[in-house]
Amino acid sequence: MTFLESFGDRLRRAVDRRRSQVLLGLDPHPAVAGGGTNAAEAFCRRALEAAGPACLGVKLQLACFERYGAPGWAAYERVAREAADMGLLVIVDAKRGDIGLTSEAYADALLRPPADAMTVNPMMGADAVEPFIRAAIAGGRGVFLLVRTSNPGARDLQDARLSSGEPWHELLARKVAEWGASSIGGSGLSAVGAVVGASAPDRLARLRELMPAQPFLMPGIGPQGANPDDLAAALGDHPASVLVPASRAVASAEDPRAAAESLRDRLAALRPGK
Amino acid sequence: MTFLESFGDRLRRAVDRRRSQVLLGLDPHPAVAGGGTNAAEAFCRRALEAAGPACLGVKLQLACFERYGAPGWAAYERVAREAADMGLLVIVDAKRGDIGLTSEAYADALLRPPADAMTVNPMMGADAVEPFIRAAIAGGRGVFLLVRTSNPGARDLQDARLSSGEPWHELLARKVAEWGASSIGGSGLSAVGAVVGASAPDRLARLRELMPAQPFLMPGIGPQGANPDDLAAALGDHPASVLVPASRAVASAEDPRAAAESLRDRLAALRPGK
Repeated sequence: MTFLESFGDRLRRAVDRRRSQVLLGLDPHPAVAGGGTNAAEAFCRRALEAAGPACLGVKLQLACFERYGAPGWAAYERVAREAADMGLLVIVDAKRGDIGLTSEAYADALLRPPADAMTVNPMMGADAVEPFIRAAIAGGRGVFLLVRTSNPGARDLQDARLSSGEPWHELLARKVAEWGASSIGGSGLSAVGAVVGASAPDRLARLRELMPAQPFLMPGIGPQGANPDDLAAALGDHPASVLVPASRAVASAEDPRAAAESLRDRLAALRPGK
Repeated sequence: MTFLESFGDRLRRAVDRRRSQVLLGLDPHPAVAGGGTNAAEAFCRRALEAAGPACLGVKLQLACFERYGAPGWAAYERVAREAADMGLLVIVDAKRGDIGLTSEAYADALLRPPADAMTVNPMMGADAVEPFIRAAIAGGRGVFLLVRTSNPGARDLQDARLSSGEPWHELLARKVAEWGASSIGGSGLSAVGAVVGASAPDRLARLRELMPAQPFLMPGIGPQGANPDDLAAALGDHPASVLVPASRAVASAEDPRAAAESLRDRLAALRPGK
């Protein structure tokens, strides 16, 4: 039996090696990439080539491939493979979530090479999330559970005030910490991460307090409005605790490499709680 | 410009025509169907042939196809087409949910022929759900938003007590009614339905009160434990207000047709509030 490094430990090592917390967001929407599977795939390859070296990994938006049916799915697999071959971490943004056997089927579809981790929607609770976590641990992979997203509509349900006085997403954050407790590696990072929108410093400090071992996947930088400096409150003991996807901000920049490097350097300069 | 019938009206007409509220659940897990795309597809064809005539439509579990990658996706499309060609309503159980352009991409992938409707996870709020609703209305199709699911873990987050005293899923139910208000057809049914687990009669009566125009997609009959007679509290003015998926209970029965007919007849005998 070979020793399988946990996702948290692998993530920390990858951040140390690549000296970057930036995830190149590959969201080949027709408006930016042009329509069709070939255009989507070519867009991703160009972005990888231009900005990949300044990044820790990629965050692939599966919807943009799925819309092209079976050929789109095959294109997703090729792009993910290419990113992995470049030494990049591969995170599939799929936001799946269902019960028991169905979650197992989704995990089987997505938590396998070349993917290192996927996003999961936890609304259905423990028995919906567990199959993903089990598959992640068994394969040395990770899951990122939605906790507090970055879109305006997040207020509608995630911020609902509970009878305890706390917002609903803090109850969810407690659950995520509990579900992730058994997969904390020597690095102090769990294989169970959290998707936390990059805004509202007060909220970030509280969520870090509730989820000390969770790597945070933090969308919302750039076009969605947050400033990289706002993320200091979310930092744990190691830079691998904060991962920042950037798609339009990098891929559509005049010089994608320079844009990725600039974001990388700003994140590297952050200090916890500042 | 052709007149596009709304999903609610189309659904009501389909229930009248086929005299059935049963959705044949096509969940070709390897344990029941055997492993591989071909086995999954053959399992679905057998189930369709055996039980299709007693059903209103099918509910396809997309995860079971997705696990086979691009060939699995192609198999999903063939099975969905075959069901549509038999005159069955096609509901894709995909539980997608994301923001803006990404939700548009998922809607583009799934809310198209031969599918008539899909399931959506609403945790991310209004701006996540709206692209699905817009696409559904534009195409005469429907969406079923998760409100209170049938699994044990549903308690973890969906039943959290709000400061108003109501459980979180009732806040969600109000939102669903609001989001679906603009797409209520002459039938009184909205294009925006709700996924409501088939258990706890008190909860069902309350959810019907909060969502009078929503068709309910009600998993949890059979192996998951609920009794068809428990669904009376969920009935609105027309039988099309309650749709019941059955997979193992039908597809794995000794006589699938008889099992589907029996469920169909028990549902047809229900009277509101009984």
